[in-house]
Amino acid sequence: MENKTIITISRQFGSGGREIGKKIADQLGIPFYDKELIEIAARTSKGFRLLGALGYSLGGPLSTITELSLNDRLYLVQEEVIKGVACEGSCVIVGRCADYVLRERSDVLNVYIHADMEDRKERAVHSYEVDERDIEGSIKKIDKRRANYYEYYTDRKWGRAENYDISINSSTFGIDGTVEIIKMLAQKKAL
Amino acid sequence: MENKTIITISRQFGSGGREIGKKIADQLGIPFYDKELIEIAARTSKGFRLLGALGYSLGGPLSTITELSLNDRLYLVQEEVIKGVACEGSCVIVGRCADYVLRERSDVLNVYIHADMEDRKERAVHSYEVDERDIEGSIKKIDKRRANYYEYYTDRKWGRAENYDISINSSTFGIDGTVEIIKMLAQKKAL
Repeated sequence: MENKTIITISRQFGSGGREIGKKIADQLGIPFYDKELIEIAARTSKGFRLLGALGYSLGGPLSTITELSLNDRLYLVQEEVIKGVACEGSCVIVGRCADYVLRERSDVLNVYIHADMEDRKERAVHSYEVDERDIEGSIKKIDKRRANYYEYYTDRKWGRAENYDISINSSTFGIDGTVEIIKMLAQKKAL
Repeated sequence: MENKTIITISRQFGSGGREIGKKIADQLGIPFYDKELIEIAARTSKGFRLLGALGYSLGGPLSTITELSLNDRLYLVQEEVIKGVACEGSCVIVGRCADYVLRERSDVLNVYIHADMEDRKERAVHSYEVDERDIEGSIKKIDKRRANYYEYYTDRKWGRAENYDISINSSTFGIDGTVEIIKMLAQKKAL
């Protein structure tokens, strides 16, 4: 039986983490899921509509909330989507606290990608999310949003090394170098 | 000309980081410096005695202190020891904010080693630093001490992925697996 390769990627904005994840998935010929894809899957699911109709409360970090907000409902269904795709087979999942959602699985390689600010600025300049007059400020604001999201739905601090099997500075090794390293480590972990 | 291999290792207590550093140095046949060695070198240096006699204030994070404490004097001379050994040639340096001290050099691979709490407890039980009645508490206290030291002498947060080129969970890959990965990455960076 072939081993599964499940890789989650958390990433600083502008670190190239999404591109790295996409390349890994393409090179390994396995599905790739990012924030947008997972959100679409969640929004169109039966579970999401059901939760909306019931205002239902589930266990876990949200168990004290009786009336769930739209975001909390979305998170709960995204959790199910992520667990589902990981259960189906090899894949790369970028963002959406996937490392935390899949924390009970031992066959997942959890990766965090960061980069030097100069490289992040260069990459961010092409993003519609960034205010051109204050690129560094925009980058920090988007990171802050990612940190808040992660810390609201988990009991961890975003960007702390101990959350992940491996954290890599993509400025040190380049995008393709980082792709190679992660592929090699996923294989090493699966052994 | 042969490329230099300078590796700094920061590590959670009980993560096996020191052992990993020692193995890398032995396998590559290069010098190994840990906290104890650097401290001895600093204490026996002329600079340390001189600073003591002058109560001298230097630039950098300590520039506002006019009367230097023993620890601050020791830190300043350790900085010089670390810069000196890195200048001399390939080496592995564990602890003592070496990643921060050498931040201006582009030929250094900065590594952070962490591990799962169960493995750390198993390793810590053999240490004289640990209170056997509360191993996990002792581990957290020692980490707290390391974090305080790092954060007092640098402008960074200890254990945050972005300080390092690479952070690795030694529980995921094992001690020897982690040694192999770091050796490979040091070579990759030097290319």
